[in-house]
Amino acid sequence: MTTVDLLRVPTAGPEDTGATRALAAAGHTTADLLAVVGKTEGNGCVNDFSRTLAAARWEPLLPPETVTVFSGGTEGVLSPHVNLLVADPGPHPGHDRGLVGAAGRTRALAPAEVGREPQLTAVREVVAGLTARLGLTADEVDLVLVKCPLLTSERVAACRAAGAEPVTEDTYESMARSRAAAALGIAVALGECTPDEARHALAEGERGGRGGPAEVWSSRASASAGAELTDCHILVLGTSRAASGPLRAVHGTMRDAIDLAALTGLFEQVRAEGGEVVQVFAKAEADPAGTVRGARHTMLTDSDLHSTRHARAAVGGLLSALAGHTALYVSGGAEHQGPPGGGSVTVVYRVPPAAGLA
Amino acid sequence: MTTVDLLRVPTAGPEDTGATRALAAAGHTTADLLAVVGKTEGNGCVNDFSRTLAAARWEPLLPPETVTVFSGGTEGVLSPHVNLLVADPGPHPGHDRGLVGAAGRTRALAPAEVGREPQLTAVREVVAGLTARLGLTADEVDLVLVKCPLLTSERVAACRAAGAEPVTEDTYESMARSRAAAALGIAVALGECTPDEARHALAEGERGGRGGPAEVWSSRASASAGAELTDCHILVLGTSRAASGPLRAVHGTMRDAIDLAALTGLFEQVRAEGGEVVQVFAKAEADPAGTVRGARHTMLTDSDLHSTRHARAAVGGLLSALAGHTALYVSGGAEHQGPPGGGSVTVVYRVPPAAGLA
Amino acid sequence: MTTVDLLRVPTAGPEDTGATRALAAAGHTTADLLAVVGKTEGNGCVNDFSRTLAAARWEPLLPPETVTVFSGGTEGVLSPHVNLLVADPGPHPGHDRGLVGAAGRTRALAPAEVGREPQLTAVREVVAGLTARLGLTADEVDLVLVKCPLLTSERVAACRAAGAEPVTEDTYESMARSRAAAALGIAVALGECTPDEARHALAEGERGGRGGPAEVWSSRASASAGAELTDCHILVLGTSRAASGPLRAVHGTMRDAIDLAALTGLFEQVRAEGGEVVQVFAKAEADPAGTVRGARHTMLTDSDLHSTRHARAAVGGLLSALAGHTALYVSGGAEHQGPPGGGSVTVVYRVPPAAGLA
Amino acid sequence: MTTVDLLRVPTAGPEDTGATRALAAAGHTTADLLAVVGKTEGNGCVNDFSRTLAAARWEPLLPPETVTVFSGGTEGVLSPHVNLLVADPGPHPGHDRGLVGAAGRTRALAPAEVGREPQLTAVREVVAGLTARLGLTADEVDLVLVKCPLLTSERVAACRAAGAEPVTEDTYESMARSRAAAALGIAVALGECTPDEARHALAEGERGGRGGPAEVWSSRASASAGAELTDCHILVLGTSRAASGPLRAVHGTMRDAIDLAALTGLFEQVRAEGGEVVQVFAKAEADPAGTVRGARHTMLTDSDLHSTRHARAAVGGLLSALAGHTALYVSGGAEHQGPPGGGSVTVVYRVPPAAGLA
Repeated sequence: MTTVDLLRVPTAGPEDTGATRALAAAGHTTADLLAVVGKTEGNGCVNDFSRTLAAARWEPLLPPETVTVFSGGTEGVLSPHVNLLVADPGPHPGHDRGLVGAAGRTRALAPAEVGREPQLTAVREVVAGLTARLGLTADEVDLVLVKCPLLTSERVAACRAAGAEPVTEDTYESMARSRAAAALGIAVALGECTPDEARHALAEGERGGRGGPAEVWSSRASASAGAELTDCHILVLGTSRAASGPLRAVHGTMRDAIDLAALTGLFEQVRAEGGEVVQVFAKAEADPAGTVRGARHTMLTDSDLHSTRHARAAVGGLLSALAGHTALYVSGGAEHQGPPGGGSVTVVYRVPPAAGLA
Repeated sequence: MTTVDLLRVPTAGPEDTGATRALAAAGHTTADLLAVVGKTEGNGCVNDFSRTLAAARWEPLLPPETVTVFSGGTEGVLSPHVNLLVADPGPHPGHDRGLVGAAGRTRALAPAEVGREPQLTAVREVVAGLTARLGLTADEVDLVLVKCPLLTSERVAACRAAGAEPVTEDTYESMARSRAAAALGIAVALGECTPDEARHALAEGERGGRGGPAEVWSSRASASAGAELTDCHILVLGTSRAASGPLRAVHGTMRDAIDLAALTGLFEQVRAEGGEVVQVFAKAEADPAGTVRGARHTMLTDSDLHSTRHARAAVGGLLSALAGHTALYVSGGAEHQGPPGGGSVTVVYRVPPAAGLA
Repeated sequence: MTTVDLLRVPTAGPEDTGATRALAAAGHTTADLLAVVGKTEGNGCVNDFSRTLAAARWEPLLPPETVTVFSGGTEGVLSPHVNLLVADPGPHPGHDRGLVGAAGRTRALAPAEVGREPQLTAVREVVAGLTARLGLTADEVDLVLVKCPLLTSERVAACRAAGAEPVTEDTYESMARSRAAAALGIAVALGECTPDEARHALAEGERGGRGGPAEVWSSRASASAGAELTDCHILVLGTSRAASGPLRAVHGTMRDAIDLAALTGLFEQVRAEGGEVVQVFAKAEADPAGTVRGARHTMLTDSDLHSTRHARAAVGGLLSALAGHTALYVSGGAEHQGPPGGGSVTVVYRVPPAAGLA
Repeated sequence: MTTVDLLRVPTAGPEDTGATRALAAAGHTTADLLAVVGKTEGNGCVNDFSRTLAAARWEPLLPPETVTVFSGGTEGVLSPHVNLLVADPGPHPGHDRGLVGAAGRTRALAPAEVGREPQLTAVREVVAGLTARLGLTADEVDLVLVKCPLLTSERVAACRAAGAEPVTEDTYESMARSRAAAALGIAVALGECTPDEARHALAEGERGGRGGPAEVWSSRASASAGAELTDCHILVLGTSRAASGPLRAVHGTMRDAIDLAALTGLFEQVRAEGGEVVQVFAKAEADPAGTVRGARHTMLTDSDLHSTRHARAAVGGLLSALAGHTALYVSGGAEHQGPPGGGSVTVVYRVPPAAGLA
């Protein structure tokens, strides 16, 4: 069980690793890093080289067990930045709980496994292991962040050369299938659905149709796909009563992309505890029904701009106004990461020590 | 002076003129229409044929004096719709004021005049005339909506063939210059700057640089450019003490794209009067400084997606959540229509009749 | 059997119907028009309103039996224009053959029928009927041009509301499925495959995978999809020994997007007959294998720009250089309209009368 | 004077430096590398991180004096690859001439210098120096390849913070201004225009207008801009009678984007010498007049897709068909690198040794 701190540091570009200076200024070294979680300014889609560039620059600086999660797409007001998740054991007197975290990786996945049950299973096992290692119950987990692979034209061809048909030959669609498999693995690990429901939902999605039953989803999952890796990078965060630290998290669910009530509820809880928002992790997507509260949206018929870019921009605009800053982690494509058209939201916040506890 | 009603009607596509049924259901004919103000689902840029399509379908149905203003771009959650501004003289007992409106057109502008002083002057004169016709003081004007021309490759070539250099040869940039000229014409007409300040700001903008002094802007201007016209279509709305009607408007200014305080203030004023929001008209843009509250944004370095699309998506996401619906009029490119990076906002709302007045 | 002429007229925009003046100058009226076949300057994808705009302007001018085929996308050097196919019975002495044409429509297709066997069958029947009406053998047909419907978010929702699952919920992908069904209908009608092979290929494609067996395709099919119609518009052209006229056509197949040999062969045949190229109709697509002659292309991993836009630009650049002008009909997405990565090509040309025949 | 070889190696992605294996297989080490010249698969515009990624991977492997030139954009059929320019002194008996090359860098340019005379001068000086070092006359130079900086939002802001106005605040337009300054520096160095003509053309371009007089251009210049550097990387290639090697080059000029005659001429010259094409370096651009041979193109009014992407796709399609392969160096934006709408073309080819000379 590792109490963690979160340093949110702006970047001048995907190649900018200057955040290591902020790390040092906070008294840490890269050996303390559990994860580097960044928003980079590519298109967030298949050919987003900003993610690969960030990974290429960061990974040589990191211990082998530290994971990177770079999520592309800072549409609208969103600001490129990195979140450094650092082990910060304290002591932090005056706190009756604290944010804890752990990171891990699945094995590398073959192209034919992407978006299918082997990926689901691999993610589920790592999430379960990390949760156990943190001593958290499933309910105490506030966020499971996953970076998972996608299929490029080359991986599609490799898959077929190996005699198997990939989950899809559409490279953009492969991102959705990979996110879905990861999210369902999380949902099973956190007891939000049964293995059978997850398998069924995954198979439904592969057959096309609606991407599986709407009711099967995790309220803590945040998965994003990229061409820069072939395994899955996983970070689990939770608020533990066995830990003591100034950071905490709450999580909730946006029912749709304009669910102000859900967000207001979370922000009010933070304020009620005297907290200050450190970071928001949110998923966003175009409602697959083509409407938001009954009114038609055009995200799914816009052939110039993929729907995940639309969704990040819109939800990012809303969250930035509520948070008062724009360096937020908003990720697009929320398959099984909230109800259709909505998405999971986790707010990490800092509270002052309580007099009675200090 | 014409008391007006506003009917907000969803559209199934740019070509959809079915809103005439809603008009009839409300007891009106097209003869009552001052203006048809729509959001259409194109890219909102130079080659946005959704605006031309909407105009091509609507204009044969309308009296010659009715103006159309189609603003392209429903990025993110925004929903395509039309706003029908109809003369609705009443009587509407129980109201000590009411929303009034008038519409007009400038003469057709030559390509060399677009984005330059002749356009500024033409807009200023029509706005002044419409304001006078409505018996409004400049302060009582809540919104001046303008649809103005842009330069296509053909118009650039025609300009040069006529021996003149256009304000810019960059067709996308010509939209900004045209909006700027229109907005500065409005600012002069409403006494928000002097003619000299406006001229200077326009010349500054043409020379490149920052688009003119940041301090010269109108808080009521909303201009959008399109290839579908060569004159400017203008609609003036204001709240008049000499009128009596259920609609009113308030206007304000977003200082930046996440100015929640400004919006909350406007929405609270509506609520304080017992009102219900009918429509929001807002301008949005990428802050030309490249930052929002000190944090870098990427809207001006994204060569795949023009900044006006980013801005509409982000501000549209915020406004939709506050308004509770997505069929809002959010228009991109706010040159002199609010401070740099911000934009003008007008909320039209409906109040019940007051017992004492009825 | 109708001998036809082809007038190729540039357009100033999708809304430009000024080609009627060229029609009149050639001694024709709109009553002589079999078809208006245009390239319009939208994105050629789902939200291409340039097609709808062109149709909205042209259709009121046309007799009910005249069909329109507007294909979006003039990427690269391609130039927007219309091709007017007019009945021109002559007499045209001095020709031992001539280009003949006929046009028709299928019934309107329900959303659930798009991209499936009912569409294939409907197209097949109309093509067979038109071919018979022209007195052509299948081999004499040089081009079957089809405009077919696609699925928007609204049509997907309508389909599901009616209890059926659409062929795909991805609106861009629905264009490919619709083109495939139309092309396979043509292939069956022209005897290029058996009904069973076509059905099998269509089913394969719907299951994802490779879009069906590569070997099933028509060398004369050119299908493009659009949101502006729900039936299929069909034009059949062929060179008939029973007709006498100055126009002829040859058709061939590009094996890949840089198949210079195939094109050179066609152009040389034209020259050998003393002919002058009037128009080229070509299909283009990204090779689904992700390579061109073994070298990787990036059209299928570019999430900013759909592959049909890439393909039109590249093939349009090549064909324009060979033809010496840029107002060509190059259409993207060649499912079953040539081998994978290639496409059908038809050259219409004009020959002088032969002395011995005149 | 260094005789050079050119190895053209496909890449699996911008991060792929596996071409070092081909280098070794050819008997070379990275110490022999004059330059790594690659086409990477980004958008070729401001936010093209594929270039930065390639540079980040390659530069640690290279000697300090080796330059990199990564040009983004493999639209259409173009295939990502690198060209390794290696010193290959021979002996190569049997050749009465040979391709020679040299590479260098300018000093880093301040943001206010980009696109202005200091950049022109810096490029001119380095080109003149490299040409002299190679013992080439200006006429013997076949290609000057330049990678030059652009302005990002941050550089624009830095410029203004330093009290200077940048050449433009439009980041995409800054690429054009930077290419223009580099090209004019080359033109002066090669005696293709006078310093005064170059200065005048540059100033014209900065004032907007047509980007300077059309007649001032270099037939050997190929400049591309990127955010990944602040100096200019320069490679000069020429065919020297004082060298002996199997490679040669010819250069020419496309008068427009479909100038088949110019290309045919070059390819025929290669064939006449018994040569085999190794690589083609070409510039491409949208004709600023908005037309190609009198027919309207839409590259300058397409707000979804920048004109350089259109141009690369179209010219790349044509050149690939002529060359028979798609791994060509086609770069977009040809300001002063050929006549307006055209571009410079250099063909590098290999000839067998001549019996009489061996």
